[in-house]
Amino acid sequence: MTTHRFRPTRYFNAIGTADPVLRVADGDTVVTDTIDASGLDAREVAVAPRPNPMTGPFFIEGAQPGDTLAVRIDRLTPSRATGWTYSPLALTVLDPAAIIDRPPSQRAVWVIDRDAGTVRLQDPVRGLEDFAPPIQPMIGCFGVAPAGGQALSTATSGPNGGNMDYRLFAPGTTAWFPVSVPGALFYLGDGHACQGDGEIVGTGIETSFEMEVTFRVLKRTIAWPRGETAEDIFTIGNARPLDQALQHATTEMMRWLGEDHGLDARAASHLMGQVVRYDVGNVFNPAYTVACRIAKSWLTRR
Amino acid sequence: MTTHRFRPTRYFNAIGTADPVLRVADGDTVVTDTIDASGLDAREVAVAPRPNPMTGPFFIEGAQPGDTLAVRIDRLTPSRATGWTYSPLALTVLDPAAIIDRPPSQRAVWVIDRDAGTVRLQDPVRGLEDFAPPIQPMIGCFGVAPAGGQALSTATSGPNGGNMDYRLFAPGTTAWFPVSVPGALFYLGDGHACQGDGEIVGTGIETSFEMEVTFRVLKRTIAWPRGETAEDIFTIGNARPLDQALQHATTEMMRWLGEDHGLDARAASHLMGQVVRYDVGNVFNPAYTVACRIAKSWLTRR
Amino acid sequence: MTTHRFRPTRYFNAIGTADPVLRVADGDTVVTDTIDASGLDAREVAVAPRPNPMTGPFFIEGAQPGDTLAVRIDRLTPSRATGWTYSPLALTVLDPAAIIDRPPSQRAVWVIDRDAGTVRLQDPVRGLEDFAPPIQPMIGCFGVAPAGGQALSTATSGPNGGNMDYRLFAPGTTAWFPVSVPGALFYLGDGHACQGDGEIVGTGIETSFEMEVTFRVLKRTIAWPRGETAEDIFTIGNARPLDQALQHATTEMMRWLGEDHGLDARAASHLMGQVVRYDVGNVFNPAYTVACRIAKSWLTRR
Amino acid sequence: MTTHRFRPTRYFNAIGTADPVLRVADGDTVVTDTIDASGLDAREVAVAPRPNPMTGPFFIEGAQPGDTLAVRIDRLTPSRATGWTYSPLALTVLDPAAIIDRPPSQRAVWVIDRDAGTVRLQDPVRGLEDFAPPIQPMIGCFGVAPAGGQALSTATSGPNGGNMDYRLFAPGTTAWFPVSVPGALFYLGDGHACQGDGEIVGTGIETSFEMEVTFRVLKRTIAWPRGETAEDIFTIGNARPLDQALQHATTEMMRWLGEDHGLDARAASHLMGQVVRYDVGNVFNPAYTVACRIAKSWLTRR
Repeated sequence: MTTHRFRPTRYFNAIGTADPVLRVADGDTVVTDTIDASGLDAREVAVAPRPNPMTGPFFIEGAQPGDTLAVRIDRLTPSRATGWTYSPLALTVLDPAAIIDRPPSQRAVWVIDRDAGTVRLQDPVRGLEDFAPPIQPMIGCFGVAPAGGQALSTATSGPNGGNMDYRLFAPGTTAWFPVSVPGALFYLGDGHACQGDGEIVGTGIETSFEMEVTFRVLKRTIAWPRGETAEDIFTIGNARPLDQALQHATTEMMRWLGEDHGLDARAASHLMGQVVRYDVGNVFNPAYTVACRIAKSWLTRR
Repeated sequence: MTTHRFRPTRYFNAIGTADPVLRVADGDTVVTDTIDASGLDAREVAVAPRPNPMTGPFFIEGAQPGDTLAVRIDRLTPSRATGWTYSPLALTVLDPAAIIDRPPSQRAVWVIDRDAGTVRLQDPVRGLEDFAPPIQPMIGCFGVAPAGGQALSTATSGPNGGNMDYRLFAPGTTAWFPVSVPGALFYLGDGHACQGDGEIVGTGIETSFEMEVTFRVLKRTIAWPRGETAEDIFTIGNARPLDQALQHATTEMMRWLGEDHGLDARAASHLMGQVVRYDVGNVFNPAYTVACRIAKSWLTRR
Repeated sequence: MTTHRFRPTRYFNAIGTADPVLRVADGDTVVTDTIDASGLDAREVAVAPRPNPMTGPFFIEGAQPGDTLAVRIDRLTPSRATGWTYSPLALTVLDPAAIIDRPPSQRAVWVIDRDAGTVRLQDPVRGLEDFAPPIQPMIGCFGVAPAGGQALSTATSGPNGGNMDYRLFAPGTTAWFPVSVPGALFYLGDGHACQGDGEIVGTGIETSFEMEVTFRVLKRTIAWPRGETAEDIFTIGNARPLDQALQHATTEMMRWLGEDHGLDARAASHLMGQVVRYDVGNVFNPAYTVACRIAKSWLTRR
Repeated sequence: MTTHRFRPTRYFNAIGTADPVLRVADGDTVVTDTIDASGLDAREVAVAPRPNPMTGPFFIEGAQPGDTLAVRIDRLTPSRATGWTYSPLALTVLDPAAIIDRPPSQRAVWVIDRDAGTVRLQDPVRGLEDFAPPIQPMIGCFGVAPAGGQALSTATSGPNGGNMDYRLFAPGTTAWFPVSVPGALFYLGDGHACQGDGEIVGTGIETSFEMEVTFRVLKRTIAWPRGETAEDIFTIGNARPLDQALQHATTEMMRWLGEDHGLDARAASHLMGQVVRYDVGNVFNPAYTVACRIAKSWLTRR
């Protein structure tokens, strides 16, 4: 179990099959730097073009097509004192008639106050003078090489992960990705200091990070990303419209309950029907993200 | 402030402009009986046809088109010891390819154990022998007469409410509906003893109830249902696909933050972008339901 | 076979179960007047409120729930010399980003030149000085009482027909509707002098009409509207998104090919896969309309 | 103006930025071979894996990012005597409830009778004994390298073209693609001997072809593919749901009418509102395809 400290010198705007920047063993940890969604690093210097420039790819030894790569998010530390968002609400979340009166898009700067543990607008607006939600760091975009020789823009997402912008991809969560190429080829970036459901202003609070993740190769096959927090398990669907993303996530959860918890389709439905929770990761990117989530307290692991 | 005890003798499968069964004053409380989604009453006698037969309509004096009817849900008491659900997962939440292997639809009976405060399958299935989530009663279908002389099936929903199947329409919540006709004409029914997000088996745990609600007429205009719990405020959108339901709910929340909390479109987006939560009421009915929810702790009432 | 001349004195903005204005026999013809979508009659006097005020309902003797009402469109004669449209393109057909620069909504008047057989803008705009497409009259909104005691706004549509805005609902076409109440209760109105696919400016060329239709009751059951022209048969789906409307129409066509043309599901797919055509009725109303169409030359009637 | 005869020896399942197999000049013609969607060549030998293996990429000299590549489809000649389809109807075009009774997926062989000019099932099914629609060859999948270093599966499509399965991509049509990389990098394949709207069995009649195309570089910028036939101009949108594909195509047509025909947004809407036609390219692939089409007889070229 080695911990690698990797300092990126170039970044990728697509998740594909670029030559790996580092080879790590199953069980290893990587500590690395990520830059923000617009390419600004810890010193606010533009070092890569938009969108969501990725650090990586990392080659995880032993990962083969058909396997699953487990990525435990150990730590997400903002590496500068400010982040930024857009306003107002994104075109995708407004009634079309409300777009007519929408004010023009603007960039706002937020102070990331690590001492207070909060974020706040650098230039407060009327009515939000005291608004300071907690820092809740998350990874906006991460995943592995997609199948079929593809390279997918970091603006979007698919079965291989990508730009999911789901707030539970946070420290303590382990994310699973389906492996399509030898070594998996893992990329990460687009950290957010905070974000509500849906990424409905088109961004979280975008900033640079030092990220620490630990890899494990599982000899099992999944169809869509999965995750586990201290409280919950969840599955992810990425598609448009939201209905289809929800179908992917729900079907994957039904499969998981069968594989690991001994529930056939009927039993899984009895459980899910009473206790399932849906979260909207993003309703902004070309593919939307829906999570299907179940508290682990309801599950009996076999 | 009078409390009326109303015992229904007929039921409605559409929410429209039927003759009111009772006239009540602004501020009055009604205690009444509702039957389950298939028309079974407290003795499990079929007294009305599907779907979702409604008790009502109640005429609330003083309610005029353009007003808002506030309905506080005081109490939802199951009036029999069993409820029922369908299995397996609904066609709307599965990947189309997963429908091919779906087992046939079945009805399951659940015991509603008021002493234990839980629900459990009457005939447990393998892997769920100990599954007993808490009774969490909610109203599946309620609302007021729609605009334009319409009468809408209780299978669906719209700006006037209807079959939203959202689990936060629970005791302690106050729901707001836009009034389109004199007296508002309020209907209610389709109580669930428990239900996860999305009503993904096509039902909650369907049973008969004694329901107690209190009415208040607000001289303000809303476009979509709104609600308030001890912790949160929320807005509702009803439409297909989920994307459109989410747009309605989000736009209504933006308006609400402007009206009551002094936030213009840009400020509202700064708040919502960091703290909004989306809930899926149902992803089963002809119109799906999405709630846009914000914790009241983030709000400064003006 | 009687021809009735009916002159309406009131109109309906919902298709429901109002008292019939006329009872006619199976096989009878009705000649009647319709007013435009905004309620203007042949003299351009406002005689009813929006949207799409309907003439009717007509009670067709012998029609019972489970039957099909066939309505042959014999003649659609504009009853005044002008109609109107909106511009620019509707919010539903533009990329959301293009809504930002959309000019404000305006009403334009078109001359309906029955001698020339064309329509043209009363005040031509630059680049369209010579634009004069042919008069191609069609019925925007017609249908029968929906199931379940509903009354549905004439802004929308469903299995019972309604505001479908499909240009093949034109003279010579026979439309079929599923009957849900005794007498069917048929309504019609919202005539257009011309319209492209999709009703993408939110209107056709809206004007008043004299309409002539002939009724026949079929002792067979359908799920969605169907139609037949000199060249084609077609089925209609009404829903959002377009995908769902297309699914309804396609599934109904598969059923029709089985019932009347001896094709099982596999054979129907071989035929449809090579020769089917899809038309977009409207992509503007609360429910969109898609037609699934097949040339009769491909069919062998059994 | 050179005509190149290119014989491919390898194929691509993603449209990206592979090394070009041939460099051609602006104005040149390429005659080449394509294999069928499953990788079978003219001798029915499997020479490449699914899906839709592409011939190319061709580097067109002078094409620069921001330019448009015009591809005239000169000739599409099936290179073997059979093709194949799937049955029954695809999961994407059926009501979900109709999937339950759907027969299992099967492959059917069609005879491509070049003398008769028709296609027919090799093993006719009951009711289709005489079904022999005309050979109407088309290109299912073609396009240029996408933006941002992406490589997109030939199962799907985007602004750069791809698997659009639109039957008007046929001999005589000129298709336009937005260029994102130097040389454009053009790929083509997936020829169909016949196909209805929507590719609703999941395939056209899939076969190998000899294809002849001629390239021209236009110093103008487009956002989505465009096309021109003898009769019509059309624009393409690729997305899910169909609504979004239609929005892309409609907005692109509005822009085209402004650029080339002097119509501002309001004038374009007056024209499009009365004469537009929508075609469904496919409603099967991960991204659906909608064409917005206008007869050239309505246009006054400036």
